[in-house]
Amino acid sequence: MADGTLRSLDTLETPALLVERARLERNLARMQARAEALGVRLRPHVKTHKSVALGQRQAELGARGITVSTLAEADHFSAGGAHDVLYAACIAPNKLPHALRLRRAGCALVVVVDSVAAAHHVAEFGRSQDERFAVAIEIDTDDHRAGLAPDACELTEVAAALAGGGAELWGVMTHAGGSYALSDPAALRAFAERERAGCVHAAERLRAAGHACREVSVGSTPTALSAATLAGVTELRAGVYVFQDLVMLGIGVCTREELALSVLTSVTGHQRAKGWVLVDAGWLAMSRDRGTAGQTHDHGYGAVATLDGRFLAELAFRDANQEHGILLAEPSLDVAARFPVGTQLRIFPNHACATAAAFPRYHVLDEHGELLPETWDRLHGW
Amino acid sequence: MADGTLRSLDTLETPALLVERARLERNLARMQARAEALGVRLRPHVKTHKSVALGQRQAELGARGITVSTLAEADHFSAGGAHDVLYAACIAPNKLPHALRLRRAGCALVVVVDSVAAAHHVAEFGRSQDERFAVAIEIDTDDHRAGLAPDACELTEVAAALAGGGAELWGVMTHAGGSYALSDPAALRAFAERERAGCVHAAERLRAAGHACREVSVGSTPTALSAATLAGVTELRAGVYVFQDLVMLGIGVCTREELALSVLTSVTGHQRAKGWVLVDAGWLAMSRDRGTAGQTHDHGYGAVATLDGRFLAELAFRDANQEHGILLAEPSLDVAARFPVGTQLRIFPNHACATAAAFPRYHVLDEHGELLPETWDRLHGW
Repeated sequence: MADGTLRSLDTLETPALLVERARLERNLARMQARAEALGVRLRPHVKTHKSVALGQRQAELGARGITVSTLAEADHFSAGGAHDVLYAACIAPNKLPHALRLRRAGCALVVVVDSVAAAHHVAEFGRSQDERFAVAIEIDTDDHRAGLAPDACELTEVAAALAGGGAELWGVMTHAGGSYALSDPAALRAFAERERAGCVHAAERLRAAGHACREVSVGSTPTALSAATLAGVTELRAGVYVFQDLVMLGIGVCTREELALSVLTSVTGHQRAKGWVLVDAGWLAMSRDRGTAGQTHDHGYGAVATLDGRFLAELAFRDANQEHGILLAEPSLDVAARFPVGTQLRIFPNHACATAAAFPRYHVLDEHGELLPETWDRLHGW
Repeated sequence: MADGTLRSLDTLETPALLVERARLERNLARMQARAEALGVRLRPHVKTHKSVALGQRQAELGARGITVSTLAEADHFSAGGAHDVLYAACIAPNKLPHALRLRRAGCALVVVVDSVAAAHHVAEFGRSQDERFAVAIEIDTDDHRAGLAPDACELTEVAAALAGGGAELWGVMTHAGGSYALSDPAALRAFAERERAGCVHAAERLRAAGHACREVSVGSTPTALSAATLAGVTELRAGVYVFQDLVMLGIGVCTREELALSVLTSVTGHQRAKGWVLVDAGWLAMSRDRGTAGQTHDHGYGAVATLDGRFLAELAFRDANQEHGILLAEPSLDVAARFPVGTQLRIFPNHACATAAAFPRYHVLDEHGELLPETWDRLHGW
């Protein structure tokens, strides 16, 4: 609002993406404090929020540098003043000219490889352009995706392939995304230790082979919130902790009171005989992410809540079409009387990264549930 | 390209969204010809493509009016010259001021309700603003989502609620989305007949009760391509037919040669021992839609194809993270030798509407697989 006055939620057209500022601030402070207690820098993964305003807030609280999942994010945040950027997915050769443009424009971009082939692509392109790309080698500490095993012979070969000009080794990085499958604190602590130990071991192997391996970068929200020590690590990466979500709740690394992101929706109709409440948040708003399906509590397409954020156990978000959500009520409920057309509800998402991606901006709530005048834009696309 | 010359696909940064123009044109012509053969107008659902350029092409080929799933689409296409707009989801009361702005700006917007409560919201707001909203009543012909059953007592009550000023009945509309669960041509034909007959019956009930029910609007891509007759219907709606997708292929209403949409991706690495090829199209690019999971052929997160569009049976798109796709190869394959880092592949999506939603624009291919100079923007968000 131009006049800066507060508005109530019912002035918003639905669906709309909401952030509770007080919860967000607590989440940011919690992770920053953890990184400091563990003696490492925090390099937040901005793929979750994709918002320059939010990245700046992380930096104000002590974060150093950012992690991105695309070069479009690097462009966007670099233009917003964040120049220390780790692009944390192995780079495809067709992106090297873009990476070069970023570096020439003043962005201290670090790119990632996990093979001799990719290292050669980067080094050769660097030599041809008279550029020295800073390169991290990805380590696979939990067998879940990309990266070289900490003991892989190829590790030193990749470092050697980076040593002939055109590139220089920045360090090693890993992401123990397999932690998303856990829910026991002891198992999470052990998983965090496996992530740390594997990445530190890879760094030591490189150093023993004569390669300067300055940085050791690890992290995922579950392991970051579970690690007992990060000895030998230089920086911690995490993304979803800013908002938390139902998947993190199921893993056990956050509480309901830390869920900072939700979708505001409106009741558009009912199928009374079936106990259905139809709302205007479908899979485009919520995403098709069903990350809680394998957890103890399956939240369907999201947890239905009142306007002030209390979970409504009597409604399950059962199915979704593009712009329709189908909420199934307990059989005894008269849905049309209890949730008339126009009723506003909030839906907490399974996966914050996926849900936020559908929206161009965040609306911000204060601690009383009132809308603040500001909105925060977010980046879309590649 | 400013100079208008063709480019080959390997000049594109990945992931990128591709449309094959010749296939698109055949798909557009096929549906237009069907509508004409069945003696009805075609009102395409633009929620699939969200592109003004593509909507204009549909109009050039004979389409009359458009269907939208959000008022943001109504804004966008109306600004692009399409003023005959059916907003095909029951309207939440908080959107009425927006609908009013559209009508005052010259958009002949039709809104939808399926309850007396919603009809009262529209009519009362219309009276308060000295506006007569054109309103369709949604009919539920297949028990799958919103709408009143063709025989519901409430049907005439809704029409009566619209008759007191502030609104006027435009007609009835239905969408037999349950057709997505079928794959037998005879069952599809019967389902299309159920959709037609139910909606026409509802219109006749309204007319018998003295309400002018001018329009009878039906459709979904599977039923539109299967209907034997549309007697009593005035217009046909369909969306995904423009691109077709793997779900439509599984239903049996298109062939592989009609799949016009795909995602260009690059190989970024491998896990050789596991037979994994890692690519830079993850769930953000493909969406989490697993619409083929319940069909005869489960395509995972999409069908992997060569640069010239041939399906690669030896690679299955098994898992996806935000910016990573994991393709699983047949055990005998040496993945790094066969698909080296930098190899470009194309992925045909399960659900075109969901995959396209992640991208800000389409890149267009000619019939030889060369990139045309133009790109088509698409709308994002609400």
